[in-house]
Amino acid sequence: MSYRPFAIGEVQMHYHDWEPFCVDPLTPELGEEVTLRLRTRAKEGYLILERYGEVERRPLKAVKGGLEITVPMYSSPLRYCFFLSRERCYVSSGGSQGTMPRYDRFFHLLSAPSVPEWAVGAVFYQIFPDRFKNGDPSNEAKAAQWVYEGRPIVKKGWDEPVEPKFGAHQHYGGDLEGIRQELGYLQDLGVEALYLTPILPSPSSHRYDALDYLNTDVRLGGNEAFERLVADLHARGMKIVLDGVFNHIGSAHPDFQKALKDPDSPEAGQFTFHADGTYAAFFGVKTLPKLDYANPLTVERWLDGYHAPVRHWIRKGADGWRLDVAHQIGEGGTDRGNTELLRLIHRNSREENPEAFVFGELFFDTTEKLRQHTLDGSMHYAGFANPVMEWLSGRNVYGWPVQVSTQEVWATLWDHYTALPLQVRQCMYTLLGSHDIPRPLWRLRGDVGKFKLALGLLLSFPGAPGIYYGDEIGLEQANDYDDFVGDPMCRGTFPWDERRWNQEVRSWVRQLIALRKAVPALRRGGLQPLAVSNTLLSFRRIYAGEEVWVYAALEPTVLELPMATDLLAGREVSGRLELQGLGLYRLKR
Amino acid sequence: MSYRPFAIGEVQMHYHDWEPFCVDPLTPELGEEVTLRLRTRAKEGYLILERYGEVERRPLKAVKGGLEITVPMYSSPLRYCFFLSRERCYVSSGGSQGTMPRYDRFFHLLSAPSVPEWAVGAVFYQIFPDRFKNGDPSNEAKAAQWVYEGRPIVKKGWDEPVEPKFGAHQHYGGDLEGIRQELGYLQDLGVEALYLTPILPSPSSHRYDALDYLNTDVRLGGNEAFERLVADLHARGMKIVLDGVFNHIGSAHPDFQKALKDPDSPEAGQFTFHADGTYAAFFGVKTLPKLDYANPLTVERWLDGYHAPVRHWIRKGADGWRLDVAHQIGEGGTDRGNTELLRLIHRNSREENPEAFVFGELFFDTTEKLRQHTLDGSMHYAGFANPVMEWLSGRNVYGWPVQVSTQEVWATLWDHYTALPLQVRQCMYTLLGSHDIPRPLWRLRGDVGKFKLALGLLLSFPGAPGIYYGDEIGLEQANDYDDFVGDPMCRGTFPWDERRWNQEVRSWVRQLIALRKAVPALRRGGLQPLAVSNTLLSFRRIYAGEEVWVYAALEPTVLELPMATDLLAGREVSGRLELQGLGLYRLKR
Repeated sequence: MSYRPFAIGEVQMHYHDWEPFCVDPLTPELGEEVTLRLRTRAKEGYLILERYGEVERRPLKAVKGGLEITVPMYSSPLRYCFFLSRERCYVSSGGSQGTMPRYDRFFHLLSAPSVPEWAVGAVFYQIFPDRFKNGDPSNEAKAAQWVYEGRPIVKKGWDEPVEPKFGAHQHYGGDLEGIRQELGYLQDLGVEALYLTPILPSPSSHRYDALDYLNTDVRLGGNEAFERLVADLHARGMKIVLDGVFNHIGSAHPDFQKALKDPDSPEAGQFTFHADGTYAAFFGVKTLPKLDYANPLTVERWLDGYHAPVRHWIRKGADGWRLDVAHQIGEGGTDRGNTELLRLIHRNSREENPEAFVFGELFFDTTEKLRQHTLDGSMHYAGFANPVMEWLSGRNVYGWPVQVSTQEVWATLWDHYTALPLQVRQCMYTLLGSHDIPRPLWRLRGDVGKFKLALGLLLSFPGAPGIYYGDEIGLEQANDYDDFVGDPMCRGTFPWDERRWNQEVRSWVRQLIALRKAVPALRRGGLQPLAVSNTLLSFRRIYAGEEVWVYAALEPTVLELPMATDLLAGREVSGRLELQGLGLYRLKR
Repeated sequence: MSYRPFAIGEVQMHYHDWEPFCVDPLTPELGEEVTLRLRTRAKEGYLILERYGEVERRPLKAVKGGLEITVPMYSSPLRYCFFLSRERCYVSSGGSQGTMPRYDRFFHLLSAPSVPEWAVGAVFYQIFPDRFKNGDPSNEAKAAQWVYEGRPIVKKGWDEPVEPKFGAHQHYGGDLEGIRQELGYLQDLGVEALYLTPILPSPSSHRYDALDYLNTDVRLGGNEAFERLVADLHARGMKIVLDGVFNHIGSAHPDFQKALKDPDSPEAGQFTFHADGTYAAFFGVKTLPKLDYANPLTVERWLDGYHAPVRHWIRKGADGWRLDVAHQIGEGGTDRGNTELLRLIHRNSREENPEAFVFGELFFDTTEKLRQHTLDGSMHYAGFANPVMEWLSGRNVYGWPVQVSTQEVWATLWDHYTALPLQVRQCMYTLLGSHDIPRPLWRLRGDVGKFKLALGLLLSFPGAPGIYYGDEIGLEQANDYDDFVGDPMCRGTFPWDERRWNQEVRSWVRQLIALRKAVPALRRGGLQPLAVSNTLLSFRRIYAGEEVWVYAALEPTVLELPMATDLLAGREVSGRLELQGLGLYRLKR
């Protein structure tokens, strides 16, 4: 690779990210002029701009603080980098090199409509509704009330542990009223938006195999409970994002039942049947038949029509979608047409609410899809959760032993961050845990120090950080460390007995969120590396002249700081100081 | 970047490239099973395979020499990398890392139809027909025989230098009969295929502004001369590739003239006119109106119909196309639809000749387009000519001073090589010079040692190397070094007086080509780095167990070699030896 990540000296010379100094306006319309600025000491150079397949060179103008140029948004993304004449180097996304970088390393700037303002850097909280709080015991499922996959469902007591043998059969009775009752708790923590896993009527407790896409499960309180929750959330200035399961539906859904019974029905064309009577399904799971968007009826019914759930729930007050297995949605049992389908979901959501925030699961490398102007962001497993947890725990998301050094975790964070379109960088749903992977504190074998470091990174890194319910009070899993499993062990109930809370973790999360909201550079600042060693990872966040230096030290480390405010301690510092764990320092202007 | 290029120790452990050990069959049909092997000492691992948007893990089987797995070709490209369980690392294209690489670093394997066998590693020779040889003085243009761009054309004597002021107005009288007469010269040099810049009737001497796409310029000898040339070439087992100019035509072409005169004509829809009467053109050059493929007539007339030139010339015996500004071809004055149009050109050429070789100009980063299963290769400016000449000359293709270290030139070669689909790597039209950029020896200010090193790299690097006419005899340019210009100064006539030839350079090229043809690893072997320092660049070529080590030393350097044959000296060597310049060593099995 000719690509050379910035060293600290260069950092102070060359900087271009999504903030007012560098991109004005921040999200230009297609065809509109945009001013691009490189913060640099260089005095002379060119913009290297891709336009209709050709690469053009346009001279930059020296201005206070750097070099600038104004160009029309010819395309979305607009792809460009810079060449500095005296320094004889190209400055591309995240690094510099002497030869022209591949397009992969060009900056990618999106045109409007792009990310909604409210989601930029916003703090999310993910809830698995059956397990957060039982606010209305009257709507609980009863033991053996129905049969699911050949076995009766199981009713669990709130404090009983989840058991693998009961999988999605075990129901605890959490509901939307429970969430509504705890909005005060969440807002006190600093949460700005909720992401709920599915709330649709469904025979399983995870509800990813829905029977009905236009109503709320009565066991969660039905549509009234949803409306009440939304009203209360919005009254508090909070937002709610729902889980959009458009790759597959439940096999008990009437459309699929009709398809099974009547091959001539229009519904039959919504699925991909094989010669032996089997059908395309989510990872071959028979209860989750895959929707086939080669059929116009499928597109109309689920994504595009007036009554399509994509539109319906946004009209009902949802502020956006988290798209389940967004990377698999497609035609003919494959992901064919995926890009266009994601664009359609995004566009239709925005038609219903111009501020809707639509992000994908995109479990793997997200950069390719997000560069195609599809979604506002994605769950950031590949570029955040995975490398950070691999670094700190030594195991990857499959439980395989891995070896990821501090240098390498930084390199991976930086690689994905700088590969993303500029706007999307600040709306990636960064996370440590979710309903699909083991809880972070469990992966760290209960090491609270490391967990606090991980949370520190989560809440000081660019993106829209998501906290999985219970992680903020140190919720673990009941299973053995050798038995590496997420679902269902990561879906334990939230203990409302405060004596079971880890208050140290909770205060830490609360403090970090408060800082993030008070300090624009932490909430939405651009990113630049500072230094990295075997035990130290550090970076800068920069926004409109404000600068915060973030340090994560695995061992006691001596730092040399300029005049700054220690944001965690709330006091002025400068010169040498020793740090272990997280340090946040806002430089004096 | 988490991506870490291989260090030498690792190289000997992990290797996967396009050769029989690693990929069997070498070009599987879509849906056909392919066996993928990683040459490694590792005993356990997984294939990490992208399938329909999801990333699957499939266990590898230990076999002699490495790990293997057989999988169906789900898509083209099939994208994958490897995970080694004990080594705890991912092996992706060209490197290894502890975290899962982005898709950009996955291997990309194409399904059939892919590159034609004859073009794999073949040696090309590029001719600008007006300047190679005047074989039939009777067809020469006469002074002021016609007016071009408002000025009469100029007839030059063969030995007169090109002059910038006469640009494309100066005609020297080179023709196809001249080329035919020198096939013996070319074959003696080792050339296997010709690439000719346009031969169509045209008012300029470069002929990129053609008047007629279905005939040969009478000043080149007309269609009969073409047929004779093709017959003689094919009788010698040689191939010929023509320059396909499908982005734009000449403004004097009847279609454009009709469009100017009659806005209602079907022809008018073939161009993109603006409100002020101007029209989309190649870099705004008025004589080169851009074809608009948004119009079905344009697609039919130039690319798709029975009489479309894409088909016509392949039927007439051309063995393929070099597509001029392939990256710009598109709809509405832009590159919209480019990928599909390139696929159409490729498919139609193959319909006429299943062995047609279709490569693009693709002047910039080629990897993105070639990954989309479009063409068989591309002129390799970005990933070969530019970095090599920048390294050795200190100036880039625009004449800007640049600084490219030996480490960086290797990193750039490696970055592009490993980003390419496996098959395409061996069919990239690698080059040092062409009709569009200054001659390499001139860029090196006449330094024959450096030029020989550059030629050594060209002829020992993977790809289908192209020699620009005259470079093999050390042809320079007449202009001052400060006046950095290619066209028209790089288009001087070939001096047939052998006293003007640099015989050292010619023998060198002849020897290298002969070795390349005699040694399969040099012709079509995979690539692996060996070592790189400030003054030494080295790599290995590997094919079916045969291995050649290639060294390029800017200064006297001591090497430590295993038992090997020094291919240039033709003797056995082993242990320490001193080298300056190029060294080629075939290891003893």
